[in-house]
Amino acid sequence: MIVVMKPGASQRHIDHIIERIEQLGLRSHVIVGTERTVIAALGEKRDGAKQALETGEGVEKVVPILAPYKMASTEVKQDRTQVTVRQLRVGDGHVGVIAGPCSVESRSQILEIAHLVREAGAAGLRGGAFKPRTSPYSFQGLKEKGLELLAEARAQTGLAVVTEVMAPEHVALVGGYSDVLQIGARNMQNYPLLEAAGESGLPVLLKRGPSATMDEWLLAAEYILKTGNTQVMLCERGIRTFEDHTRFTLPLATVPYLQQTTHLPVVVDPSHGTGKASLVATMARAAVAAGADGLMVEVHPDPEKALSDGFQALTPTAFQQMMADCRRVAAAVGRQF
Amino acid sequence: MIVVMKPGASQRHIDHIIERIEQLGLRSHVIVGTERTVIAALGEKRDGAKQALETGEGVEKVVPILAPYKMASTEVKQDRTQVTVRQLRVGDGHVGVIAGPCSVESRSQILEIAHLVREAGAAGLRGGAFKPRTSPYSFQGLKEKGLELLAEARAQTGLAVVTEVMAPEHVALVGGYSDVLQIGARNMQNYPLLEAAGESGLPVLLKRGPSATMDEWLLAAEYILKTGNTQVMLCERGIRTFEDHTRFTLPLATVPYLQQTTHLPVVVDPSHGTGKASLVATMARAAVAAGADGLMVEVHPDPEKALSDGFQALTPTAFQQMMADCRRVAAAVGRQF
Amino acid sequence: MIVVMKPGASQRHIDHIIERIEQLGLRSHVIVGTERTVIAALGEKRDGAKQALETGEGVEKVVPILAPYKMASTEVKQDRTQVTVRQLRVGDGHVGVIAGPCSVESRSQILEIAHLVREAGAAGLRGGAFKPRTSPYSFQGLKEKGLELLAEARAQTGLAVVTEVMAPEHVALVGGYSDVLQIGARNMQNYPLLEAAGESGLPVLLKRGPSATMDEWLLAAEYILKTGNTQVMLCERGIRTFEDHTRFTLPLATVPYLQQTTHLPVVVDPSHGTGKASLVATMARAAVAAGADGLMVEVHPDPEKALSDGFQALTPTAFQQMMADCRRVAAAVGRQF
Amino acid sequence: MIVVMKPGASQRHIDHIIERIEQLGLRSHVIVGTERTVIAALGEKRDGAKQALETGEGVEKVVPILAPYKMASTEVKQDRTQVTVRQLRVGDGHVGVIAGPCSVESRSQILEIAHLVREAGAAGLRGGAFKPRTSPYSFQGLKEKGLELLAEARAQTGLAVVTEVMAPEHVALVGGYSDVLQIGARNMQNYPLLEAAGESGLPVLLKRGPSATMDEWLLAAEYILKTGNTQVMLCERGIRTFEDHTRFTLPLATVPYLQQTTHLPVVVDPSHGTGKASLVATMARAAVAAGADGLMVEVHPDPEKALSDGFQALTPTAFQQMMADCRRVAAAVGRQF
Repeated sequence: MIVVMKPGASQRHIDHIIERIEQLGLRSHVIVGTERTVIAALGEKRDGAKQALETGEGVEKVVPILAPYKMASTEVKQDRTQVTVRQLRVGDGHVGVIAGPCSVESRSQILEIAHLVREAGAAGLRGGAFKPRTSPYSFQGLKEKGLELLAEARAQTGLAVVTEVMAPEHVALVGGYSDVLQIGARNMQNYPLLEAAGESGLPVLLKRGPSATMDEWLLAAEYILKTGNTQVMLCERGIRTFEDHTRFTLPLATVPYLQQTTHLPVVVDPSHGTGKASLVATMARAAVAAGADGLMVEVHPDPEKALSDGFQALTPTAFQQMMADCRRVAAAVGRQF
Repeated sequence: MIVVMKPGASQRHIDHIIERIEQLGLRSHVIVGTERTVIAALGEKRDGAKQALETGEGVEKVVPILAPYKMASTEVKQDRTQVTVRQLRVGDGHVGVIAGPCSVESRSQILEIAHLVREAGAAGLRGGAFKPRTSPYSFQGLKEKGLELLAEARAQTGLAVVTEVMAPEHVALVGGYSDVLQIGARNMQNYPLLEAAGESGLPVLLKRGPSATMDEWLLAAEYILKTGNTQVMLCERGIRTFEDHTRFTLPLATVPYLQQTTHLPVVVDPSHGTGKASLVATMARAAVAAGADGLMVEVHPDPEKALSDGFQALTPTAFQQMMADCRRVAAAVGRQF
Repeated sequence: MIVVMKPGASQRHIDHIIERIEQLGLRSHVIVGTERTVIAALGEKRDGAKQALETGEGVEKVVPILAPYKMASTEVKQDRTQVTVRQLRVGDGHVGVIAGPCSVESRSQILEIAHLVREAGAAGLRGGAFKPRTSPYSFQGLKEKGLELLAEARAQTGLAVVTEVMAPEHVALVGGYSDVLQIGARNMQNYPLLEAAGESGLPVLLKRGPSATMDEWLLAAEYILKTGNTQVMLCERGIRTFEDHTRFTLPLATVPYLQQTTHLPVVVDPSHGTGKASLVATMARAAVAAGADGLMVEVHPDPEKALSDGFQALTPTAFQQMMADCRRVAAAVGRQF
Repeated sequence: MIVVMKPGASQRHIDHIIERIEQLGLRSHVIVGTERTVIAALGEKRDGAKQALETGEGVEKVVPILAPYKMASTEVKQDRTQVTVRQLRVGDGHVGVIAGPCSVESRSQILEIAHLVREAGAAGLRGGAFKPRTSPYSFQGLKEKGLELLAEARAQTGLAVVTEVMAPEHVALVGGYSDVLQIGARNMQNYPLLEAAGESGLPVLLKRGPSATMDEWLLAAEYILKTGNTQVMLCERGIRTFEDHTRFTLPLATVPYLQQTTHLPVVVDPSHGTGKASLVATMARAAVAAGADGLMVEVHPDPEKALSDGFQALTPTAFQQMMADCRRVAAAVGRQF
């Protein structure tokens, strides 16, 4: 890392930083510029070193050189990770589609949707059983009953079940029914939950928090990878910005950026990413063109009667059309869909 | 709430919305404008009604009229809530100061700081024992050992202990040592944790998530209030914006806005809010002038050697100066400090 | 528009608002809800009415129902606008590509690029002659000399020239050489410039300001449309958010949103939108899949030697590949490219 | 500046960068770390060098060390700039207050307000004559007539007139009446306007653009300073973020940050910064506590009848109270008010 000294830093300040660098087990290298002195600290990156140095007297700032994550990095693992569960294949050339309702609402609802998205070409079934809701007065999900219904839908269709887990103490329960554990955007930095999900050994779909940077997101993935679980999918679902014509802002440049930075597959959720049914299918196409390894899309047989987020759910017909369009775009960019 | 129909909405669409409104147990009231029709839905607010209506055919948008929270609202409770624990008084004219290190690092460190902040006029002691860290490679706190040290510092100084709890299953443990449970910004929407903290019966300090709106924050508080626990403090600690010269952007207008909206006291954390020691004391003064009910400030006897966030910690001398300045500003705006 | 009264609003407050609404030439319609009273103000929208009402005593907020722009709206003009200049066709099913260097740097540079992008399939040539630069110490463009070189490149290639105009007093000069006047992001709300550009009668490419909402952008377009000039293209070039791994955040949902809202064509600039050459081509593809009516892309024969923004310029080879990829994606989504 | 090479950068890439650095007239200094090589480029900063280097093959990023502005920097000029016009003193220990209506609306309105704010202790009179309005259908100001009225108000009260100029060709006209030229937020990066304002020799109040970084803002100031005009005030008026309970987010940490970075005085505009009359006075107090060198506040004798922005105007009574409160806070923080 590079320690930039203030213009007026004295030799005493510089000597002190050199001493601190060496105490931290790093080597120092001083460069005297025309207006400022900078000091490089060489050696393997050690967390905490940056913080220790930037509080030194006479220091203006400390610029890290290495990325803070390791196991998620393409520098550590060059070949791309593919997550495979039942017939769902996400990554390394394959675009996997996970579709279904926001919440599991009833047996007939989830079975109907499961058959429908299966026929349209999806390989994963989404559906919330434990629902984190902004308001305590909103529908909170069917909980274990919902998990049982998802498992029944899987038995009938062969779809891989992807459902959210909200607390470490629920991991065993949810993991007993689900093929993939979903970590929601609100919990991206819930570290006890990340560790518990990692230790389950199940594939994990990690949604981006609405104000998370790439480093924060990849470090959250690192919490899972550190448990030895390598089956991690990143899911871009939109960030919070000043834009108010969409629910969130969907920054698709995330996809190619991450594909240069990490070996983990990147899924895009255009339903939350836009929050408007009329924009979802178009953004799904754009996500495929941007190279997404997967899509996660909300579909409901009757969006108007959905118990949650109906405004961003596609109807069955719209979903079928979206799948046909995405298949053509995937072919145009050389992906299996 | 108000349902705004699209310009081309047909009578059939309008009739359908009226029917839906009535099915939801609300009364409808149609207003035909020069260019559009709007339909008011009257009755007590029911969550889910907005979503159900906005997916209706011919609907452009649905505008809610009532705030989504209830128990946190000044409409429900006019007199201001004061949180009182030991000598710490936050709210209703009293500005309470909670100070201490980012993390508890050692017995000598926490005892030294506790005495120091006590003498300077603080009534609460902060210090992390369970630390949520962005990187899994960072210092994660002393855990239960840290809690014991905080309790020892309290025994010596009488300060109220404020420390973070990260998971529902830790609430009993942390609550056994701490006077106030702190919910960190990353966990603002960790609903199982909010409920468990609420049920502990201890006062809760709820930090704002870095991209949370006022409604989302107050609804998170509502999760706690719903358990019957009324001792909730809101803590503004900065939001994530495009600004990069500070760690977060500290929006002090939050303070007067919340004081018009909720009866809960509002604490400001200028340490995280700026992320730069050189800006903390000035923003603490500004927060008091803005009417803050409390301050939460990081202080470390030797910031350069801190195991976490030293760059935003005040030295003991700077903290004493800050307290003197804040006391004068508090007097100027008619507050007890 | 809908005036929402505060919970405690008195009959006197309500009567006053009714009186004000009528003074403004609108009709009032009172709806008494269970907790609040709302008053609809009916009639043709009149700017200023919202502001006048929301300062009234007892008023909580005023919710507008109608969009603030008129001429840009699909409600006023259903058929889609196509901008046609020389062989450049933007909109209504045609994807037009405008490519070239950030700045015109020399005769050989601009002529070389012009031939190159022409052969790869572009129909418009970009290149800055008057350059708005963040720093006064940066290269400010060749000014009139640059315009002459652009005109020479046009004479040789037939490409339509698109170049920026920075001040009303330059409109005549720039308009004497350019086929399209570009209004840069920094000047999106430079109203004297918008009016002068509109009055030139030339097609105008209006870039989105980095923190402009859709309404602000469309109202800026409205300033041009009001002069009687209907040849306006909107250009999305990224917004400013907390993301720092890209220069700006490119929100492609803008494209389908605008296509539902306005009849004006929407161009996407993935060069500024990402600020990284390695992301540009992928985002160009994604923009086409999102339905963009045009692309604006920076190309430089030797990006490393560019006098401005080389880091986001494609090499000729990368541009040719991008065009081939975009052509396939355009076919997949049924667009002429 | 520091060039960080990619992990796999070859010796050929490194040699090429060294050559480029020397071509740019800088000295190179190579540091081989455990995982990457970084190359320092030493010498006086030259704009364009960063861009030239970051497009080099094998380069990951280029980290600048020096601030991009010069004349605005405290490194170049240590003593603080005070802007003095008539009785208005802004900076270097003096808090100057500029108050008045959003727009000049009539002779009686501006004269009434001028006397009123004078009596309450303001030394500057604001009031728009040329109004940049988001919508072309909004009131655009009285133009030259408004300027004449401002001059008449000055003749009666001795207040310094501060009014906005929107285009280079208006500088002479506006400068003929106004004591200070205001550059609005929308025009912060309108460089021809900045240069024309600078050349007028009049003091300039430069508002921050709603998405401008500190560097961009100070570089805009640099455009003015470069003309030889040293009388520049910076005015923080809020930034655009995801927050929607205020019109903009007012980041008061700007004040102490700038006071460490630049010698130019910093004015705060709590009217635009909050967009709500009920928050303005509190944030004015907070701004003074944060060390602001000046305040710019909207006051209207009858906000409900204002032709623009009445929702954020203080009534005369509220303004008098604000002045009394700010005076006490200024005394508490050792400022002349």
